[in-house]
Amino acid sequence: MALNGSTIPQPPSPNPFPMKFCSACGNPVSLRTPAGDHLARHVCNACGVVHYQNPKLIVGCVPEHEGRILLCRRAIEPRLGFWTIPAGFMELGETTQEGARRESFEEAQAEVEIGSLLAVVHVLHADQVHVMFRAKLPQPQFGPSPESLEVALYSEDEIPWQDIAFRSVDFALRRYFDDRQRGVENHHLTALDYRRSGGVR
Amino acid sequence: MALNGSTIPQPPSPNPFPMKFCSACGNPVSLRTPAGDHLARHVCNACGVVHYQNPKLIVGCVPEHEGRILLCRRAIEPRLGFWTIPAGFMELGETTQEGARRESFEEAQAEVEIGSLLAVVHVLHADQVHVMFRAKLPQPQFGPSPESLEVALYSEDEIPWQDIAFRSVDFALRRYFDDRQRGVENHHLTALDYRRSGGVR
Repeated sequence: MALNGSTIPQPPSPNPFPMKFCSACGNPVSLRTPAGDHLARHVCNACGVVHYQNPKLIVGCVPEHEGRILLCRRAIEPRLGFWTIPAGFMELGETTQEGARRESFEEAQAEVEIGSLLAVVHVLHADQVHVMFRAKLPQPQFGPSPESLEVALYSEDEIPWQDIAFRSVDFALRRYFDDRQRGVENHHLTALDYRRSGGVR
Repeated sequence: MALNGSTIPQPPSPNPFPMKFCSACGNPVSLRTPAGDHLARHVCNACGVVHYQNPKLIVGCVPEHEGRILLCRRAIEPRLGFWTIPAGFMELGETTQEGARRESFEEAQAEVEIGSLLAVVHVLHADQVHVMFRAKLPQPQFGPSPESLEVALYSEDEIPWQDIAFRSVDFALRRYFDDRQRGVENHHLTALDYRRSGGVR
């Protein structure tokens, strides 16, 4: 049974800390369209700096050990208690593959070898792009972390589909198993948006 | 001959507007490692908000019309006067494909149809990830813009390789032609870093 009686992930909260002040000079900003631009931006009323906002990258992987997949049960919000793959915000100075590897170690104490590109999911309601890779977990060594209540290996028919934390992860896992069965390693692009009619597209 | 006598793109300037003040409350920030974190962040001394910085996505495409490729000569810095493919910062609320299509119209007045994923280039010295697609330009209609001095179609043997603006674009174009000759549409991941020894890796 699904945790909290729901299988549908809720959209995350909008930015809890909207930009009100210029990070360069500390004076108030206004939302307006700069000359030559076509979108409203946060512009400093004093120094004129334009503060652009852009989507953030989430990087992760599907680690496999002897046919089974490593999943983590989230110890933090959003989706505390639900299951996910190792994934998190990409840091400055790393590649997407390096980020996916780092997140596996931080969240699951797992030393993985990153493989081919599996999925790019545009999560439009969260202003995020999720980039997920296939990965190998050579040794069955892993464990919990401040971000994961528990970590475990699941065979395909054991995956807790009703308790997967995010639709992007559900998408990546289903494509992973489909491709594995067909003996291919394709990559898959899609978009999710709770704000557009129909929910997922 | 290469513009300015140089074929090697220079790394962009570091952030000209480093964060000094909290964008939520306007008070000064300090660079320190929050409890439970492993990297230094800009943290507000007054309200405690942590301001994370993450890589930005650049989205673009290689538009083809009857075998020739659409290139734009840059009207703005960096690399003013050099040639590039249509590409730019991904905006909130769009997919990478939608962003690549938008940039083609904004920079080259070109209505393109985005195709398969061509390249993901981690530009580590610029804190950017460049995502580039193949594209079709059904009609030979295009023109200059505030961002492009001129726009033109080039056959493979006419490409101004010495005057390509960015190494990520050089990489994408070479992979494009290699794959086209072999009749495949693969995707290619790489990383560039001026700060690591050896320059490109």
